[in-house]
Amino acid sequence: MTSENLGDRYRQYLGCLNTRRLEELDEYVADRLTYNGQARTRQDYREMLAADIAAIPDLHFELQRLIVSADWVAARLWFNCTPEREFLGFRAPGHSISFSEHVFYRFRDGKICEVWSVIDTQAIRAQLEA
Amino acid sequence: MTSENLGDRYRQYLGCLNTRRLEELDEYVADRLTYNGQARTRQDYREMLAADIAAIPDLHFELQRLIVSADWVAARLWFNCTPEREFLGFRAPGHSISFSEHVFYRFRDGKICEVWSVIDTQAIRAQLEA
Repeated sequence: MTSENLGDRYRQYLGCLNTRRLEELDEYVADRLTYNGQARTRQDYREMLAADIAAIPDLHFELQRLIVSADWVAARLWFNCTPEREFLGFRAPGHSISFSEHVFYRFRDGKICEVWSVIDTQAIRAQLEA
Repeated sequence: MTSENLGDRYRQYLGCLNTRRLEELDEYVADRLTYNGQARTRQDYREMLAADIAAIPDLHFELQRLIVSADWVAARLWFNCTPEREFLGFRAPGHSISFSEHVFYRFRDGKICEVWSVIDTQAIRAQLEA
């Protein structure tokens, strides 16, 4: 898969998340993957995403920067959303907040098999304390 | 500059930081840049790095993942270090800690002109509270 194709594929994956078509995740995510070094099944991964969406009904993955090379995708994602339940250990803020996530993905056979994610929890904390 | 060359250049930049040759930053960093969307001069950037090193004398930038495309570099950096003074708003822990940074750089004429950084402060906080 070329870098351009892999970039397109990643955008389709985000589209799948943004339109809540989690039943299509098997097209984009391998049966088994690692998430920040921890072994996960695709079902685990789907449940994590479903829990995020349940806590943040208006969760939308906005792609601000995409860098693709060989089997790797690096993305800067931007979120402007209104959490309605506890998420990432934070209480629901009662208003919308904005924060970024910087995430690296390795693809194998066109599917995500390795994820390294850092979320800007410092920004979230600052908005909760404001 | 090819992706390979830009990757090499970025490794040299990290070498410059790891050997504390901050006086050579003008080879790698543009006169003016943005850091997480904020305008900075190279001198501001150098002072930020010098302050980090003063707070964390054994600060070492370990490159765990490098993705390069066109003018962009995405890096997963790993730190295993012993902060001796307050850093990022955290007290000195009194022991070594480990954490990652996911950072995107745009280069112009071979020099860094735009930086987007997210540091895993959640991991730092967890190790301070442990």
